Formats: sequence, structure tokens, C-alpha cells
Amino acid sequence: MEDSIVKEETAFSLTHKKDESFWEWYSEVVTRGEIIEHYEISGLFTLRPCAISIWDIIKGFFDAEIKKMKIKNCYFPLFVAPLNQQKQKDHMEQFESVLAWVTKTGESEVEIPFAIRPSSEAIMYPYFSKWIRSHRDLPLKLNQWCNVVRWQFSHPTPFIRSHEYLWQEGHTAFATKEEADEEVLDISELYRRIYEEYLAVPVTKGQKSELEKFAGGQYTTTVEAFIPNTGHCIQGAASHCLGNNFAKAFEIYFENTKGEKDMVWQNSWAFSTRAIGVMIMVHGDDKGLVFPPKVAPIQVIVIPVSSREDANSQVIFEACAATVKKLVEAGIRVEADLRDHYSSCWKYSHWELKGVPLRIEIQSKDLANDQVKAVRRDNGAKTDIPLASIADQVKVVLDDIQQNLFDIAKQKRDACVEVVDTLDEFVNALNRKKVVLAPWCDEEAVEKDVKAQTKMKVSSIKTICSPLEQPELIKGKTCFASDKPAKKWTYWARSCDMID
Amino acid sequence: MEDSIVKEETAFSLTHKKDESFWEWYSEVVTRGEIIEHYEISGLFTLRPCAISIWDIIKGFFDAEIKKMKIKNCYFPLFVAPLNQQKQKDHMEQFESVLAWVTKTGESEVEIPFAIRPSSEAIMYPYFSKWIRSHRDLPLKLNQWCNVVRWQFSHPTPFIRSHEYLWQEGHTAFATKEEADEEVLDISELYRRIYEEYLAVPVTKGQKSELEKFAGGQYTTTVEAFIPNTGHCIQGAASHCLGNNFAKAFEIYFENTKGEKDMVWQNSWAFSTRAIGVMIMVHGDDKGLVFPPKVAPIQVIVIPVSSREDANSQVIFEACAATVKKLVEAGIRVEADLRDHYSSCWKYSHWELKGVPLRIEIQSKDLANDQVKAVRRDNGAKTDIPLASIADQVKVVLDDIQQNLFDIAKQKRDACVEVVDTLDEFVNALNRKKVVLAPWCDEEAVEKDVKAQTKMKVSSIKTICSPLEQPELIKGKTCFASDKPAKKWTYWARSCDMID
Repeated sequence: MEDSIVKEETAFSLTHKKDESFWEWYSEVVTRGEIIEHYEISGLFTLRPCAISIWDIIKGFFDAEIKKMKIKNCYFPLFVAPLNQQKQKDHMEQFESVLAWVTKTGESEVEIPFAIRPSSEAIMYPYFSKWIRSHRDLPLKLNQWCNVVRWQFSHPTPFIRSHEYLWQEGHTAFATKEEADEEVLDISELYRRIYEEYLAVPVTKGQKSELEKFAGGQYTTTVEAFIPNTGHCIQGAASHCLGNNFAKAFEIYFENTKGEKDMVWQNSWAFSTRAIGVMIMVHGDDKGLVFPPKVAPIQVIVIPVSSREDANSQVIFEACAATVKKLVEAGIRVEADLRDHYSSCWKYSHWELKGVPLRIEIQSKDLANDQVKAVRRDNGAKTDIPLASIADQVKVVLDDIQQNLFDIAKQKRDACVEVVDTLDEFVNALNRKKVVLAPWCDEEAVEKDVKAQTKMKVSSIKTICSPLEQPELIKGKTCFASDKPAKKWTYWARSCDMID
Repeated sequence: MEDSIVKEETAFSLTHKKDESFWEWYSEVVTRGEIIEHYEISGLFTLRPCAISIWDIIKGFFDAEIKKMKIKNCYFPLFVAPLNQQKQKDHMEQFESVLAWVTKTGESEVEIPFAIRPSSEAIMYPYFSKWIRSHRDLPLKLNQWCNVVRWQFSHPTPFIRSHEYLWQEGHTAFATKEEADEEVLDISELYRRIYEEYLAVPVTKGQKSELEKFAGGQYTTTVEAFIPNTGHCIQGAASHCLGNNFAKAFEIYFENTKGEKDMVWQNSWAFSTRAIGVMIMVHGDDKGLVFPPKVAPIQVIVIPVSSREDANSQVIFEACAATVKKLVEAGIRVEADLRDHYSSCWKYSHWELKGVPLRIEIQSKDLANDQVKAVRRDNGAKTDIPLASIADQVKVVLDDIQQNLFDIAKQKRDACVEVVDTLDEFVNALNRKKVVLAPWCDEEAVEKDVKAQTKMKVSSIKTICSPLEQPELIKGKTCFASDKPAKKWTYWARSCDMID
């Protein structure tokens, strides 16, 4: 029976190819790679240790950064208390179709059913109103790491669209708009760094259009990633300036320095485990997961190459242990796969599927030359590394893999962007799964009109964002869709039910 | 209006005294100390930054320790999927009266209502059954940090009995009983260290009686703290050996090294934000919270002592900034309260209420001698500290405060323990709010009988635990309640609705 287990598992190649059937490939790679387990209730997923390990690394980075900004962590209850005021209820309306309701506790029906948080504005802001009295109570800058529940019925996708997911939600209140504006951008920059520096996923920092912004907020900044295989953009995280809108609804007033009653300026910002899904979509390949070294749960896997009968096997095993020790001491996340019932080849495929960035093979002929072989997951390149300088050299290789994954992803992304000047070019590019960058008048009516006009010609489309760093002067340009003067270069792409 | 705000807040003294009305004092100190905020839905509490800061410190310690034990973090869904098997349903029965049920998502009634996790055995173990096939898949050692919901109707108490709370739950499976037994004790020891080394709360490590153990488990180890003011013990954390019981119910079998079908041995273990409440109950006083330095969000508060008109105020402010800088560089969590609209006295009381372990007062006459005054929160002792060696000396004082809080708590606890040999002594001691340590035959029938017999004479009582390190030889002793030979020294105390 044991042999049959081993044999069964040696069938490593994925059934689906990334370029041929992307969504099936994705679904297969997250389960076979043991990062996700489907749950008995459809639309819920278990995050296996590999996923939580990645989450903890990016969480660690972000948490340390927001602490430098004097943002404090807290934890509000899971449930939205029944709201009294109509203007507060209005805010919850946008979530109405996705709320999970508790109607019974123990044996008793609850008097007024309450919802599980889809986001915590309605839970937190009544207390902002209570806690903030004077300008001296400002700024109030809170964040929480928690789970949220949004019961979206169609297209559950691991990490991307799940009934429950993990996120952080920051909620801050300021005396002035300037402070709020500054924080929105600071947080956006941290989100960019998570994606680009940790997940090796290039993103565009930009501002959402009026139509696409967070309802109830004043403006929304976003970091947008791009999935070349499907031609879709995916919102990686959002940092919203809420203006005074919620202050009005939740009566968050303060006495300003002049002794007058004033309203706070608020922000909210969030990123979630969705980031892990985006990373997998961008880097994964037909052999399985591909993790950037900075977030890889295991950065290096050490594999002895010898048969059981090999006279040198003891020497090889000792070399494996010594290598692991050296790398651990250098702060590298490393493991050795010393199992003797799997072949080296089986192990190669296994750890490729699991996305480990670098494999070190240790065999007699290399040891004789005081070196080992290193094989990169990103490009398959093989190098001999002298044992004497192994930790330093492995670090160099890992850094290079990190950079290479980013560079490749950026090349692919950039190759998919097309600058267009007219609606014809626009339709043509979108039909070729491109993201378009177009001069636009930034008017809601025009956006709606373009959506309506193109519905038959392309699938449903939308604005992605106007990049904060505009690629070139917009002055003098005409909107691609209206005859009006263009105000912003703006990205547009096709919408996607699996993502949006 | 501003002055009135300040004046209003200067009324610092707590309305309730710890020794006179303990539960009212507790309720007051957690809210006025700004560690807890009551929520609109009764029985739910917001953990304010101060609470989460403490939680993150003990979480950081425990998480690093279990990682050394190769336990991996994961995240399973919030909801219990409907169970098919009767023996699985039986496990959920113990939670039935406290479950919160989701019956509606969006606009639709759900087909079969599902409960929010009160604990995750029924969520996780079906996947243990799926993932574990061979002895090679063992041990499987998982942990998750998450929220759980138990809707207990009576006596909600911040941190101690809350409808929702944060915890970690570890769930592990082994091929042998020996491995499981060993881990149960290793985890128990980590729990002891959280309480004793971090929270400065002395605890007893012990084993629960058959009547008090986790239903469905094989045996339960516990760390038990004691609240001298009420005479009650409080379970600080529990590490259970589940034996094969859940393996049977959830069909968690594996092929052992002999090729035979075998059942796994399982453990589960958990500690929660309850630990923070226990710490507050043990150390707090009539001035407010008292935090042990190792977990204090702010370890040192620096307060300038000068009037606005003071010619030296600039010098003093600069000395404050320099002191903060030195302490931050030494890794001490320090803040300066430079607000000019509060008096020094107001600030002293404010930071005493907030539990900060050490206050540094900076004033002209001390600066003239190149020193500052340090005032301890635990005993009010004042020392002059030379500026030249401030970081080193502050560290020494903080260590001493940590030790002193533990020593005092231990003295108080020990003074409340009474060794008894007979049932009369037993009743007498419990009536004086003592915890008793008695030789006991360890029989369930006798425990039930003692409970029944004493019900009228004391309030309801129960066994706390049999200490793992028995205080003296039990051989030759007779059970205090039956005529049988005693088997274990066991602690007994009164039950408490607010805690149990």
C-alpha cells in the first residue's frame, strides 16, 4: 500500500496549463500546491500553513510600518449592532446583498437580527463619535487585523472572492483635510511596497473614477495589478479618503482650536489575503506555485542525491545537515528533504509544485569539488556554489530571483498596456485582452456612455484608475471618447466576474 | 468649554474600591483605564489599543515558541459546516446552548443553518481525516489565531466572559500516545510562562478531575490563577489530550509503520484574551490599572514638571526629549506627556490609572544635579536616577517591578491556600474564601458527593486541579472526604458565575 501512495503522488504535472485554461489552472495549483483547502460550505476556504506563513510576512512588514505612523491596533466586535439612524443604515445598504445574518443564539431567536461585519465602519464610527470631543483627541488612528464576511454568491475563487477572508482595516480621523490626504497617499505607498517589494507584483498606484470609487467616500486610491493571462486588472488594495461623509452620518464632531464645533476628516484603507492570490496568478507556472524569496515559507530546499546503496550516502546526509545549519544561521528559511522513500526526481517535482525558490542538490561528485548544485525555480538556471561561501551566494541568488520575478512580471504587464487615442483603437485593444491607457475627460456620464457603447463590442469594461504619476502631460489632449479636453490619462480594462 | 473638559477629567479616583466591591471595581477600571469599551450589543466588548498591545506581546512570545516546536499556523473558516455523523454531532452538543446561528445570507434563507465556531474541532478534524493517510503524514501540528463566539447569557465580564473573544487554538495529531503526552506538558509549560514570566501572575499547573475535564478529551491539564479578592480560581489556559476519542468520531486513521490501520492520538490547547483580564484582576489597585513592565504598552512615561511661566521650561522640555531618545534607543517603550493644558498632578493620576509601570519626573532642581526622579507604579517608591546611566538604571527598576509584582501576587495567593485533612476543615476554609489543598481519592462519585454535601454550607464548589508537582508524598494519606486512601493532593475552591 505504501508504494502505491508514493506512486500515486508522483503524478505531478498539473492537469491544466496556465496559458490554456487559466481559471482551472489556478484552482488546481492552489489546492495541489497545498496552500488552500476547499471547505464543506462552498465559497469558504481553509488557508493552509503555507498561505498563513506568507500572510504573516506581509502583515509583519505592514504592521511595523503603520506603527511608525503612530497607528494603533485594536479589535472591535464581529457583529454590526442594529443601527438607529437612516443615514447610518444607508451606508450598510451597499453590503446588503452579501451580509450573513445571525438570527438565533443558543435556543433563542434574537430580538433584532445582526449581521457579521463585511467591514467595520458601522461598528467603529459610533465610538469615534463618543471618543472624539476636542481637537486634542485628534488624530485618532486605528487599525485592526480580522476576518470579514461577504456572502457573494457567484464565482467563489480562493483568496480572490471568498465568503470569509482575512484583512486589515485602518480607520483614521483628522482635524484637517491635509492630514487625511497625506495619510491616504502614505498608505497607498505601503500597499505598493507590499506588492512590488514583497510579492514581486508590479502595480499601478492610481485614483478610482467617481463611478468606481468606494461609495460614501470622497475619493479612492488603489494599487492595481494586472493578470496578463486573462487581460484583467485586479484591485490589490484601496486607501480611501472619506471626507466628512461618515462624520455627518455618525456625528463625529470635535471642538477645534478656535472653540468651534467642527467635523472630522476620515480615511479608511484595507488590504486582504487576496494579495496572495494575485501573487500566485502572476508568478505561478505549469509546474506549480512560484514564490518570491522574500515571502516564500521555505526559501531553499536541500535534497540529497544518492541511492540508498550509495557508499557515500552518510557523507551526503551530513553535508545536507551542515548546509542547512549554515543557511539557518544566515537567516535563510531552509529545509532538507531527507525522506528515503522518495526519489530525488520526485522531490524535485514536489518542491517545484510547492513554489520553493531555490533547490540545492547535494551529491558525491560535487562534494568532491567542495561545491553543491543550485537550481532556480524561476528560470531553471543551474549554478555550482562553493560550500565555503554558500550562505552569501545563496543570498545573492535569492535576491536575484526576487528581482527577476518582478522584472518578468513587469515586462509582461507593460507589454499588455496599449495607449489609445480613439474609441475604435480602444475597442480594438480591449478585444485583444489589452489594458488601455487613454486621455479622458474624467466625466461620469462619458464613462457610463463608453460602457454602454462598448458592451456589445467587447465584454463589459470599466475604468481601472488614473495613475497618480501621469505618464505624460495631458494638457492639449482630447478625450478618446468625448470631444472634450482630456483631464487625466486613465487605464481601462475589461471587467471580470471572477475578480470584481 | 475647554477648561471644563480638563476639569471633568481630573476626577480620577475610582468610584469603587477593589477590596470593597471587586466586580464593580473591575468593570470600572477596565473602562476608565481605556482598555475596554462596552459595545451596543450586550456581552460584546471592544479591545482598545492598550489591550491589543498586551495581547500582541504574549502572542509574539507564544507564537515564536510553538514555531520552535514545528507547529504551523493555519486558518480554517469561521463556520461549522453541517455535520453528518451522530458521533460528530455529539461533540457539538456541549456547545449547543452558546452557539450563534447564521440562517440568512443576503436575502436568502440558508438551506441548513450553520453555527459560528465556538472552537474548531468540528471544522478542522474532517480535514485531518482527509490529510492523514500514512505515519509519514504524522505528526500534524496546527495552530490558529482567531476569534470564537460563545453566546453565554449570564454575567458578561470583559475579557473573562465575552460573547466573542480572541484566542489561539492548537490542534495536533500523533502516531503515538507518548508524543501526545509530551506535547500536552510542553504547551502547559508555555502557558505557565505566559502567566508567570509575562503577566507576573502565579499559576498552578495541574490536571483537571474527570468531572471538570474537557468533555470528549482523555485528560485536561490547566494553569490556574487565583483571585484573592473573591476567593476564586480562574482557569488561565488548558492543554488537553484527546486520546483517540475524536479520531474515532472523525475517522482519523493512518497506516502505521507495520502497514496496519491505526488511530491517531490528538491534543488540543488554547489560551485567550481572558489572560489580560486575570492580570488586571490580580495587579490592579484603587488608582487603576497596574501593568507588569514586560507587557506594558508604555513602560515609562516622562513628565515635565514646570509651570508655563518657568524660565527653565525650555530646558526641561529638551531634557524630556533627550530622556525619551535614550530610553527608546535602549529598547524601552517610553512616551513623554508634553501637553501643556494639564498639570503635572493631573498627568500623574492619568498615567497611574493607565497602569504605566514607571514615571519619570523631570524638573529644574533635579536637572541641576544631572538627575531625574523615578516613581514606581507598583509601590510608589521614588528614586533619583543619574541622567548619565538612565537607560541601564531604568531597565533594572523595570525588572525589579516585574519581579515585585509577581512576588506580591504569589504571597497573596499562597496566603489564601489552606491545607485541610477533614471535611469540616474543608468547609470552614472555603467559607473564609480560601482555596483548599486536600488529599483526595480522585473518585468522581466522591467529588459529586462533596459538592452536594457542601452546597448548603458554602456556595457551590468544585475541584480546581491536582498539581502536576505534588506538594508532598500522598502515600499513606486518607481522602479528606471519603475513608479511602488518598491518591492526589488536589485544590478545591468555590465556583463563580462570573468566571466559570
